[in-house]
Amino acid sequence: MSDFVRRVPEGEDRERLVCQNCDYIAYENPKVVVGSVIHDGDTVLLCRRAIEPRKGFWTIPAGYMETGETVVEGAEREAWEEARARINIEGVLAVYSIAKLSQVQIIFRATWACLGFEAGAESIEVRQFTWNEIPWREIAFPSVRWALQSWYEGRNKPLPAALLNPAEDHRGTLPLP
Amino acid sequence: MSDFVRRVPEGEDRERLVCQNCDYIAYENPKVVVGSVIHDGDTVLLCRRAIEPRKGFWTIPAGYMETGETVVEGAEREAWEEARARINIEGVLAVYSIAKLSQVQIIFRATWACLGFEAGAESIEVRQFTWNEIPWREIAFPSVRWALQSWYEGRNKPLPAALLNPAEDHRGTLPLP
Repeated sequence: MSDFVRRVPEGEDRERLVCQNCDYIAYENPKVVVGSVIHDGDTVLLCRRAIEPRKGFWTIPAGYMETGETVVEGAEREAWEEARARINIEGVLAVYSIAKLSQVQIIFRATWACLGFEAGAESIEVRQFTWNEIPWREIAFPSVRWALQSWYEGRNKPLPAALLNPAEDHRGTLPLP
Repeated sequence: MSDFVRRVPEGEDRERLVCQNCDYIAYENPKVVVGSVIHDGDTVLLCRRAIEPRKGFWTIPAGYMETGETVVEGAEREAWEEARARINIEGVLAVYSIAKLSQVQIIFRATWACLGFEAGAESIEVRQFTWNEIPWREIAFPSVRWALQSWYEGRNKPLPAALLNPAEDHRGTLPLP
């Protein structure tokens, strides 16, 4: 039986959720999203979302990291769950912060371990797009757009230093377009 | 009043903490650590920990990210809290996974915004070390060693692609030496 209130615990500098009975502090933590831009020549893989938020819009395979896994394992799992894709992680393409959602997104650049994909349970449709085919007005989230643009600028080159948020939205606070 | 049990909720594939009264799912999430290798010429800044775990051992300024901040803001805050250091983030040096702790560590390479430091509340002592002075046997955590080695290999060069865990501990599961 818990009875939590918001107050500043002794020795801390900000409010926490504290149990009035036992002083247990329930720390609230940012959430980690792991995902991948899966590319092959001039194509990237996108999934059309079967679930809210942004059902019907296109995204890269990405989702919440689970406890007990590594960031790489998380990205591989999401690629499998959403697109039945087996991938090889090349490295970190970007680390995005969506401060308004307390979300950290770790986005990898990945190639195919074996080419083949189909819609997983959370996708309506999965397909490869060339740059000119990408449905920009139907992209689910700003960070998907950022990741695709970063991939495109660095395509056919060794992986560059990881990108952070673009300057025009360095806290990840702008609304969807 | 909560009454949580571990079971697999409908539509999911693993056990979650579920409230027996209202079916609320309390997702458990990995925790994000943000920190920085703060360098100046051939020196890096280290803090001797005033708190457990690994009290008395040396670490880079790093700690748990708070909700509502960006990864950059979190690393800047930790540098201030632990070392009273004002820094400029250059970019992501490494993203480490410590699977046994469900921890993701985002480590930046940073320079001084203005040179000056002193021990914050969680540090006994703060100082700059040249490579040969680093007290390797008194380093707090394996990932601090990894980060320092990565910094050293890439020093005096543009920031390379972000590193992941070293091959010998790709899940972050090895015990402290």
